[in-house]
Amino acid sequence: MVEKRVPLPIEEAVRKVMDFAKHGTKEMLSIDLAYGRVLADDIKADQDIPAFDRSPYDGFAIRSEDTILTSNENPTIFEVVGEIGAGSVFPNEVEPLQAVRIMTGAQIPQGCTAVVMLELAKEIKSVGKTFVEIKRSYQKGDNISFQGEETHKGDILVKKGTEINPGVIALLATFGYSQVPVAKKPVIGVIATGSELLDLDEPLEPGKIRNSNSYMILAQIQKAGAIPKYLGKFSDDLDTCFSEVQNALKQVDFLITTGGVSVGDYDYLPDIYARLGATVLFNKIAMRPGSVTTVAHFENKLLFGLSGNPSACFVGFELFVRPIIQSYLFNETPHLKRVRAILGENFPKPNPFTRFVRGKIVYHEGQLTAIPAGFDKSSAVSSLAYTDTFIVLPGGTRKYEKGMPVDLLLLEDHEGSKWPWHDFIPAYK
Amino acid sequence: MVEKRVPLPIEEAVRKVMDFAKHGTKEMLSIDLAYGRVLADDIKADQDIPAFDRSPYDGFAIRSEDTILTSNENPTIFEVVGEIGAGSVFPNEVEPLQAVRIMTGAQIPQGCTAVVMLELAKEIKSVGKTFVEIKRSYQKGDNISFQGEETHKGDILVKKGTEINPGVIALLATFGYSQVPVAKKPVIGVIATGSELLDLDEPLEPGKIRNSNSYMILAQIQKAGAIPKYLGKFSDDLDTCFSEVQNALKQVDFLITTGGVSVGDYDYLPDIYARLGATVLFNKIAMRPGSVTTVAHFENKLLFGLSGNPSACFVGFELFVRPIIQSYLFNETPHLKRVRAILGENFPKPNPFTRFVRGKIVYHEGQLTAIPAGFDKSSAVSSLAYTDTFIVLPGGTRKYEKGMPVDLLLLEDHEGSKWPWHDFIPAYK
Repeated sequence: MVEKRVPLPIEEAVRKVMDFAKHGTKEMLSIDLAYGRVLADDIKADQDIPAFDRSPYDGFAIRSEDTILTSNENPTIFEVVGEIGAGSVFPNEVEPLQAVRIMTGAQIPQGCTAVVMLELAKEIKSVGKTFVEIKRSYQKGDNISFQGEETHKGDILVKKGTEINPGVIALLATFGYSQVPVAKKPVIGVIATGSELLDLDEPLEPGKIRNSNSYMILAQIQKAGAIPKYLGKFSDDLDTCFSEVQNALKQVDFLITTGGVSVGDYDYLPDIYARLGATVLFNKIAMRPGSVTTVAHFENKLLFGLSGNPSACFVGFELFVRPIIQSYLFNETPHLKRVRAILGENFPKPNPFTRFVRGKIVYHEGQLTAIPAGFDKSSAVSSLAYTDTFIVLPGGTRKYEKGMPVDLLLLEDHEGSKWPWHDFIPAYK
Repeated sequence: MVEKRVPLPIEEAVRKVMDFAKHGTKEMLSIDLAYGRVLADDIKADQDIPAFDRSPYDGFAIRSEDTILTSNENPTIFEVVGEIGAGSVFPNEVEPLQAVRIMTGAQIPQGCTAVVMLELAKEIKSVGKTFVEIKRSYQKGDNISFQGEETHKGDILVKKGTEINPGVIALLATFGYSQVPVAKKPVIGVIATGSELLDLDEPLEPGKIRNSNSYMILAQIQKAGAIPKYLGKFSDDLDTCFSEVQNALKQVDFLITTGGVSVGDYDYLPDIYARLGATVLFNKIAMRPGSVTTVAHFENKLLFGLSGNPSACFVGFELFVRPIIQSYLFNETPHLKRVRAILGENFPKPNPFTRFVRGKIVYHEGQLTAIPAGFDKSSAVSSLAYTDTFIVLPGGTRKYEKGMPVDLLLLEDHEGSKWPWHDFIPAYK
């Protein structure tokens, strides 16, 4: 019996899924474990940066007012009354025609208003004392990094939901976050379905293929910022499968199945959704590959039924699962980042539905260009290794030609977008 | 005493360091732990993909020769003699006017030469048998995915030195790599120097700053694919420091110090290099920030002396340490990827040396544009959180203006480049 399914536009499908997006919780983590995680709170400055007026150079701190008349012809001699390294504080007020030898990063001594760079000062030893000769005049503030010139106490520096890169780590350390509030990672379960699947160490058999999708999805889950939990292959018995899903749902925040959900497959998933009492949000989308992607909702948990075809599975994950993970991690731009580019090769296939071509970005003199990453069938696997973008080719067209403007969804970007699903460039502008 | 140092051009400095680049070793890792690691061998296909002629759709497998005269007006009726799901093999040779119900991914039965999509076949039940009515003619090979059409056994699919992304994982699984040969990560030691440094949980003190560079470098090391080992802060005593470095070198593949090496700092590093008998490759580079970056070599190990200024330290790591780590991981394009872009803001500072401005990429209608990521001083830390590129502004110019072409070095790219150090665009073309 062939079930009739009405394909849903991709943006409606994503919206239906995002209606069930939820935030996770936060946990505290030592700063040396925080790289690659996501901030669960805004980072706030607990002090001015610089925290005090400091010297950006090695040199001599002086009172600029002592150099009003100083010039090459009329040098001024200062007595060096001390030396301070970074981390030290000069104990006294500096008096007229005194200078303090100062190191990069050290606090400007009281009374001083400028720093003379080491290269521009000539040291003179005389009568057991040290002097420096200065040959130009200085303004108040010359060569001083002022307190708060970079950041003021109380400023919000990085927003919650941001991925923690080395620069964010530097900020966290600067502001004393030895413990960092990070988003707790959701746990995503993966069940493979399909009696054609062999485990990786089983010998090849006629008609069978190795279970590549599960491992691919485990890696996609990690890349998206969550914890993957592989729950094995479905058994051949519906009752057992049903209790496998029930059991899985107790252990995970979201559940992915791969394989099945094609019309007419030997496929238990529709029965399982029905027996669970899960609401099927959709089971056909107007997109290629991945048109059979199915998403259901049950007791505050989403069940993603991704295709058994590797490319279709890959695309379904990035479009539907990734934004749910990113939302859980407090990211307010949870979708793939969308940018304009030029199509670098002809794409002659007709396009009844919007197509997400696995592509590769190349740069031509600053012009973003994308080319299909190789063999383009929903069953293709080798092209995925080189894919760093989806080239979005809206449906209803006959072909796309080299040089046409296209929209991309970027897979290696760390920024994301709020909502990329509107007005993709059609075949001809 | 002021030491005179001759600044080395940046490309010469990088070349001097890369002369000491070395490959690491490989280790075997279970595929579920391999995401994010680097391949230590090429991936080779151990079978054709598809491994057998298979159906890309749900439908009916038939002999195309039976449809030569078939048309809408002249339909042909086939008897359905069996049904095969993915993973099964049909046991018999299919005979004239027979059809086999076939599922996506299943092997084409012997004798069959085309697949009729389910939507185009009308099932008829009669006298206890099932028939299908077909209303068009089929060519040999229609709707069949042929053995080897994607990949041939023996093909090299991904080269050693490639980072393992989800697509590469899919390939590894497809070709039965339950254990994956990955590059062993080098261990990079980090020692902080500078008596101004406070640990993160120490209270702030006048003249002192928190030790942010060490944590930043630990994260940069992880991002570059290596294992960071924090060895603490230098003591105040030269002899102790010397034995700290000696001791560190026994535990790590490369050693980074941060802080010191400024001319005139209270700085033990020059003495330590001398006592070790290390060869100092250079101690001044014609670049901003990070001109005091020092690299030394001792008994097959590199010692990187990065600046104490956060931005200078960050840049020094990415230009000098990262390619050494990537080479160790067998990457043949170990340097940052270089691309052309447009400068998105005026940059009015004069430029005696080549400047690496911490920048952010923005896309304008497919045109790559880069803007400075904020406060641009070598001591700046807050801009680093938003930095995803270095804008390379060659020295010897007065200023750069919005709209000018510039070269970028990308920090979030996974491809890298063989050698980006040639002919950067000067201020005016």
